Amino acid sequence: MKIGVFGTGAVGQTLAGKLDSLGHEVMMGTRDAQQSMAREGKDGMGRPPLKEWMAAHPKVKLGTFAEAAAHGQLLVNATSGSGAMEALHLAGEKELGSKVMLDISNPLDFSKGFPPSLSVCNTDSLGEQLQRAFPQLKVVKGLNTLTCLLMVAPRDLPGTHHLFLCGNDADAKREVRGLLGSFGWNEDEMIDLGDITNARGTEQLLPIWVRLYGKFQTPMFNFGIVRAEA
Amino acid sequence: MKIGVFGTGAVGQTLAGKLDSLGHEVMMGTRDAQQSMAREGKDGMGRPPLKEWMAAHPKVKLGTFAEAAAHGQLLVNATSGSGAMEALHLAGEKELGSKVMLDISNPLDFSKGFPPSLSVCNTDSLGEQLQRAFPQLKVVKGLNTLTCLLMVAPRDLPGTHHLFLCGNDADAKREVRGLLGSFGWNEDEMIDLGDITNARGTEQLLPIWVRLYGKFQTPMFNFGIVRAEA
Repeated sequence: MKIGVFGTGAVGQTLAGKLDSLGHEVMMGTRDAQQSMAREGKDGMGRPPLKEWMAAHPKVKLGTFAEAAAHGQLLVNATSGSGAMEALHLAGEKELGSKVMLDISNPLDFSKGFPPSLSVCNTDSLGEQLQRAFPQLKVVKGLNTLTCLLMVAPRDLPGTHHLFLCGNDADAKREVRGLLGSFGWNEDEMIDLGDITNARGTEQLLPIWVRLYGKFQTPMFNFGIVRAEA
Repeated sequence: MKIGVFGTGAVGQTLAGKLDSLGHEVMMGTRDAQQSMAREGKDGMGRPPLKEWMAAHPKVKLGTFAEAAAHGQLLVNATSGSGAMEALHLAGEKELGSKVMLDISNPLDFSKGFPPSLSVCNTDSLGEQLQRAFPQLKVVKGLNTLTCLLMVAPRDLPGTHHLFLCGNDADAKREVRGLLGSFGWNEDEMIDLGDITNARGTEQLLPIWVRLYGKFQTPMFNFGIVRAEA
């Protein structure tokens, strides 16, 4: 399947790499592909420059957000929360159309350091903002509550743990579930919360996620919902 | 131990009942004890009137917030979020003193129906507000992320699941851990997030908790943190 992945950071690379390894035709989207490829040295997070990652993944293409949107039959938004709305506007309503977009972004505000607060929360969410701005796009919020390392390798944790999906379109959620199933997620580990307003719930998991990350000093954990036996 | 429990609703009753069953001397605090005892019929949640519960728990006393505060060597705030600050003011700084208070309240705003939003969140929290208003009080935020049925009976869920504690006073947290241990919580199930500002993280678990409650149609679940094996 042709998939467009917005964002070339850790989340974008990890998702694109996994999708590539599964045989999908992946194009990553960025603001300025030439500039992204020209960067030398490690980034702020200590990751090697993008061109090294691209060299190691020769089948993955790199283009603008609009090109990645045009390429993908399915889209993944792996930008930062602060860049998400602009990325979608750069992609443009015409190219986004009525495609399915798995939105992983979180509205984290690092302006006051760690732990970050949220730039939108409680009575609204970034997922809703994106859906409102592009009403035809089928936004499915998901995978935003755990490290990208585990998004694509859920079985690296022992036992059962969960992710949360929400969005207004049932078929879009079904398609995303299928894709995530191919990553190793079990059907009963993907909890469908309902429409996109439920992104208020999942994005507000971040404030405790970042604190647990700070405490554990590793992102290799996830939320599991433990239920009473029926 | 003498324990004062603020609030006579489901959370207050459940905590007071458990503490009573463990041999503690419990006084519940309310705004107007006579009025609370005079109520007839079931309440809005379908619970029987308080006087029936009091009759079934003859050792538990009922008084004003100030009397419950004076009674307790340790205090539990089991009021609603909207009533918490007023309850503490009614108890008064003199009676609260420098006691330890386990604060279970959540700033839920039901004014727009279900699911509720939060009346404070993100860059502040109810736990912090209470701590700021009563700087000598040793506020320990905890137990606010699960149903009261499981607060006092964690082993009713299978396997490991977690609660989160935070507060500025290490000794106060140690005392609360000891008490919760007597409810059946294992040491490694009680995650200490640090100071009281971490209540921003735990209170913001409520937006997804209420949505999961709506989906499951039962409150008998809890968050478990699943970690990679060392």
